[in-house]
Amino acid sequence: MKIDVLSLFPEMFTGPMHDSIIGKAIENKIIDFNVTDFRDFTTDKHNHVDDYPFGGGAGMLLQAQPILDAFEHTQAESKAKGYPDGKVILMDPAGKQFTQSDAESLATSEHLTFICGHYEGYDERIRSIVTDEYSLGDYVLTGGELPAMVMIDAISRLIDGVLGNNESAVTESFSTGLLEGPQYTRPADFRGMKVPEVLTSGNHQKIFEWNQKESLRRTYLRRPDLIDHQKLTDLQKRLLADVRIEEEKN
Amino acid sequence: MKIDVLSLFPEMFTGPMHDSIIGKAIENKIIDFNVTDFRDFTTDKHNHVDDYPFGGGAGMLLQAQPILDAFEHTQAESKAKGYPDGKVILMDPAGKQFTQSDAESLATSEHLTFICGHYEGYDERIRSIVTDEYSLGDYVLTGGELPAMVMIDAISRLIDGVLGNNESAVTESFSTGLLEGPQYTRPADFRGMKVPEVLTSGNHQKIFEWNQKESLRRTYLRRPDLIDHQKLTDLQKRLLADVRIEEEKN
Repeated sequence: MKIDVLSLFPEMFTGPMHDSIIGKAIENKIIDFNVTDFRDFTTDKHNHVDDYPFGGGAGMLLQAQPILDAFEHTQAESKAKGYPDGKVILMDPAGKQFTQSDAESLATSEHLTFICGHYEGYDERIRSIVTDEYSLGDYVLTGGELPAMVMIDAISRLIDGVLGNNESAVTESFSTGLLEGPQYTRPADFRGMKVPEVLTSGNHQKIFEWNQKESLRRTYLRRPDLIDHQKLTDLQKRLLADVRIEEEKN
Repeated sequence: MKIDVLSLFPEMFTGPMHDSIIGKAIENKIIDFNVTDFRDFTTDKHNHVDDYPFGGGAGMLLQAQPILDAFEHTQAESKAKGYPDGKVILMDPAGKQFTQSDAESLATSEHLTFICGHYEGYDERIRSIVTDEYSLGDYVLTGGELPAMVMIDAISRLIDGVLGNNESAVTESFSTGLLEGPQYTRPADFRGMKVPEVLTSGNHQKIFEWNQKESLRRTYLRRPDLIDHQKLTDLQKRLLADVRIEEEKN
């Protein structure tokens, strides 16, 4: 997959995109990652990329010209390497709230371009090249760079070969649709805080039931909406009934 | 405000936390930012910070010891500088979904500690020091570093003196509770795409109404839920009625 980013702060990407799995995926050529500073494409003699809004109003707006010209450049380079035009994603508070199913769908693309603003609004004509608009959630951020990195992380880890076997297992466990219950590793007694006895009992059936029950308990207490969307097994239904009785007592 | 981060990937923070407004806030000593690699605190002779889960299961878990000892160290350092214990935030998919009102509330703290895992689950006993658990949204990420940076960005920009006057204005405009409508800057005609005439008319009342109407239109089309939570002015109610009629025709 080719990932292009258009940003005024290319150095922000260096650490997060070169450490960890994404760095490995770039090294292994599974992801062809490229950040372009659209300030390099401005035709303004003072290198400005923003200007005042027509009709007045506070703040500045990013102009269409530097972004559209930078995009034309990255599209030509990607095309020369054999990538399709792909999707063009604008990080914007007015965008669709990003979810795991968006990550899954975008992970099948061969080419994604992320446009990141910073502080400011966009000239509406920038949207002429945009195919998708996303927001991470209902909070105000300084720029589109961090949200773009979050999306790239969520998408990249779904691409074949990016995660090793050990790490993929974690995905599987999340895909149960329930929150994970408490988990413990060594030592069994850490400063007086002990591992629940069942986990060291060696009784696999009991351990399985305990894990299922505590996963249901945490989901019931924190995200009951997730349970509503689940098809529970008979065992899970029985365990959930127990959890409800126990929690109502508290 | 003191911000401590416990992470195995401290270099991930270098770019994002040193560019842009957060970098300036650190430079101006409004934010005292510190990242601690908890691998430095492991007592394991091979420097491991994780181990297999009790009771079996896929993946590895972060052990309590390195994180609790690193935390004890950062708490002592912060206390010596006069900061209170503050809040201890675990980035976790089972956490509360982060919102702007959480950012507002956390921005009043004098000390925040973020604990970031990577790939793996946590030994439950790590939660013994945690006061708040947050998730950015329902998507799976490789680690807690990017979500922590997103939260730090959203929180920091609300602290007095972090944003300049020009940038604060953008906050104000978001706080209307509606999405921003289309905005335009120079040139008035960009490659055949023209600015709506009203914006260059000089008629301030008409410009005001157009902006209000297009902001309502975008909110109505993309996030009708935001309108339900608004007290609209009489003008806005009339404009929204017009928008509804126009959009139903389309």
